Amino acid sequence: MDALLKNRISLELKKLLGERVSDQIEVRKEHGAGFSYHACMPPDWVVSPLSTEEIVAIVSICTTYQLPIIPFGAGTSIEGHILALNGGVCVDLRLMNQVLEIDTANMCATIQAGVTRNQLDETLEGSGFFFPIGPGVNATLGGMASTRASGTNAVRYGTMKDNVLSLKAVLPNGQLIKTASKARKSSSGYDLTRLLIGSEGTLGIITELTIKLHSYPEAIYAAVCSFPNVEAAVNTAIKTIQSGVAIAKIELLDALLMNAVNRFSGLNYPEKPTLFLEFHGSSAEIEGQISKVQAIARAFGGDDFCWETDETARLRLWRARTDAAPSAQAMVPGSKIMSTDVCVPISRLAKCIVDTQTDIAETGLFAPILGHVGDGNFHLTIPIDPADPSQLEKAKALNERLVQRALALEGTCSGEHGIGVGKLVYMNQEHGEAVEVMRAIKTAIDPGNLMNPGKLLPQVGYV
Amino acid sequence: MDALLKNRISLELKKLLGERVSDQIEVRKEHGAGFSYHACMPPDWVVSPLSTEEIVAIVSICTTYQLPIIPFGAGTSIEGHILALNGGVCVDLRLMNQVLEIDTANMCATIQAGVTRNQLDETLEGSGFFFPIGPGVNATLGGMASTRASGTNAVRYGTMKDNVLSLKAVLPNGQLIKTASKARKSSSGYDLTRLLIGSEGTLGIITELTIKLHSYPEAIYAAVCSFPNVEAAVNTAIKTIQSGVAIAKIELLDALLMNAVNRFSGLNYPEKPTLFLEFHGSSAEIEGQISKVQAIARAFGGDDFCWETDETARLRLWRARTDAAPSAQAMVPGSKIMSTDVCVPISRLAKCIVDTQTDIAETGLFAPILGHVGDGNFHLTIPIDPADPSQLEKAKALNERLVQRALALEGTCSGEHGIGVGKLVYMNQEHGEAVEVMRAIKTAIDPGNLMNPGKLLPQVGYV
Repeated sequence: MDALLKNRISLELKKLLGERVSDQIEVRKEHGAGFSYHACMPPDWVVSPLSTEEIVAIVSICTTYQLPIIPFGAGTSIEGHILALNGGVCVDLRLMNQVLEIDTANMCATIQAGVTRNQLDETLEGSGFFFPIGPGVNATLGGMASTRASGTNAVRYGTMKDNVLSLKAVLPNGQLIKTASKARKSSSGYDLTRLLIGSEGTLGIITELTIKLHSYPEAIYAAVCSFPNVEAAVNTAIKTIQSGVAIAKIELLDALLMNAVNRFSGLNYPEKPTLFLEFHGSSAEIEGQISKVQAIARAFGGDDFCWETDETARLRLWRARTDAAPSAQAMVPGSKIMSTDVCVPISRLAKCIVDTQTDIAETGLFAPILGHVGDGNFHLTIPIDPADPSQLEKAKALNERLVQRALALEGTCSGEHGIGVGKLVYMNQEHGEAVEVMRAIKTAIDPGNLMNPGKLLPQVGYV
Repeated sequence: MDALLKNRISLELKKLLGERVSDQIEVRKEHGAGFSYHACMPPDWVVSPLSTEEIVAIVSICTTYQLPIIPFGAGTSIEGHILALNGGVCVDLRLMNQVLEIDTANMCATIQAGVTRNQLDETLEGSGFFFPIGPGVNATLGGMASTRASGTNAVRYGTMKDNVLSLKAVLPNGQLIKTASKARKSSSGYDLTRLLIGSEGTLGIITELTIKLHSYPEAIYAAVCSFPNVEAAVNTAIKTIQSGVAIAKIELLDALLMNAVNRFSGLNYPEKPTLFLEFHGSSAEIEGQISKVQAIARAFGGDDFCWETDETARLRLWRARTDAAPSAQAMVPGSKIMSTDVCVPISRLAKCIVDTQTDIAETGLFAPILGHVGDGNFHLTIPIDPADPSQLEKAKALNERLVQRALALEGTCSGEHGIGVGKLVYMNQEHGEAVEVMRAIKTAIDPGNLMNPGKLLPQVGYV
């Protein structure tokens, strides 16, 4: 872009937003990478609107000058969703972080897109309600909707697609739409809510969400159980799900990760494949669930549950799970995490994980497995030494084998991280001709391809 | 259409399908009305394909001759979804009724679109699993997906949008797409599954569904509870939902309907506003739930629960609920039912129902109220005497007031019946500019407007 034009655009943006525009390289770099191994690609400008009206005006400027628009939440994406592949304007939504309404009578809340998970949790504290979706980072709710995020509670409460009633979004043509009413269900029109959820900023900028709240459970018990091998742990998860127990969390950490967690947090869990479990309900309900799951675990050679009902002890127990990624990263000082995730039908999960462990052993990489195993979803969390470029190449090859295996087992290339640029290469293989339908929708809503271009949809002719 | 052309199309269809094409008026009429007050508009042809390949070929013929294509399940729609507004080809999917796979290990089943609810229930009998979505009629699963159906269990198990993993569909351009994998969750690409669910045949013909199965509950208890007035009954439902009880069904029948049910089935329930309840879980869980809900009901002046655990007694109890529509119809011999439904945020349900009862009284119509009140959703079931045209006019005016009230309360013009042609007039009011987005999607996927034209989306300029 020539300097004169760039200057003109800067002036227009500054006229609109004053100090809330930046073209400084540090700010731009901060907004061009995310939590991932993808090399930073900074946008040309970072803007921080305060209102929907400002977003509409920003979109109008971008349309005039044909500038890419990249919506930005907390920058915690790990598949390169926020890379500015062709420069453009990064729209940082973090100043739009008002909780507009907590409507406990209707068990929902309306919030601006920049509200973060932690902020929402704090706001809801003491209300008797909670929002169950939590990825492992302090993402914004707008970002979580955009990537169809889920996390540890999804096995019981679903993902973002199941927990959003309605969205407001600014479209590339400057229209502000509301996708649905506050009613719990509706048969009125196309489901634009679900279309925007998981669209990764390629169709519009989500500005507001009405989300479902859930009653805080009467009781929460957490438990940890070690297994002789990873297959036994996974089979326990499979059998638990198949038996219809409404478990709230069922998380696998493999032996490598338990070792990393012990080192990182000074704990002394057995360094064996381990399930972290959580049960929600009345005490009577939970006790019934625990006795069922304990019996299943025993049948697969699992140890007795180590369990906690007290909140402090429970949070300490979950700390090990929460710290899994930093624990893995700490095993390779100075490393950057390469994280990937797949999801398969649950009956095939044990095979998928065991075969992946064989692959990992062949690479020589330190690549622990962490799984939301109740959903058939698991991650590899691979600390990459930047001084050794062969590690990233090996990790990418491992990821390729993992995705191919998941697809062959009738699974998906991403359970919850999304496509971004990191999984783009698998879209045609996973979806076949349905990619053409996605592209037709993208073109209908964003004919100029300005909204987060180059993400989610592979270019035509790209295999 | 000129006779020569019509003959040529008939020959092409017969060459493809042999006896499975009909242009006989009786057959056409059977396919042009649905279960509703809308006047029959028969298609020009009714075709009954046996395979996806035949559907692709039918779509190709229709594209060549620019003929409307109207997908048809069991013909149980009540908003005029299957009226052939401009003639064309009705694609009756009832011969495509194979259950392709019951995969209990992954708690899902893959079925052709013409499989009916009753057929599915019979197939699942004894498997330990069930499919929770059931409208009050023996619809096909393809039809249920197309209208985003729900029913009595939705309060606990969600609607069709929550219980379909993946769809196959033939699009207007002849492409056969699969919308998703068998994985329980995915962040890979736009959610085409949810886009097709509720699209009422306007985007393509659903040919196959992979649906979620649920473990059959350890125990099921059903209960009936009478209240001094409708407000007390609805407030019991509201409070039950707000308290987080995972109730499986909570259905309201008003006093008028209880009287109709008693007459129709020779029962002797108190003729007062009544909640029919069902609880799923272990006996311990259910007893906890029942004692909570009974306490709530008592606080609102409800009677002691009359409850059943034995299956035969339970089914007899639900019979009254199931027969609600025929019971209402029997009150006006020779009548046709005009049925409408709205859904509002639950805190506003009592007001919405009470105000609607005042409206009903003013019309002089017999218009009992039946509600899936746990979702904020309720129906008016109005038997219309065909000999008295003023009744339909009054019913339409009542419907108008009902929808306006629901929209003013931040609800939706249809909770589960869909738009069809009956609710078309409310789309712009409910969705505003979002209708333009729906129209852009429709045009992108069906540029010739051949798929069920005139349904769901109002014509441009139509208020």
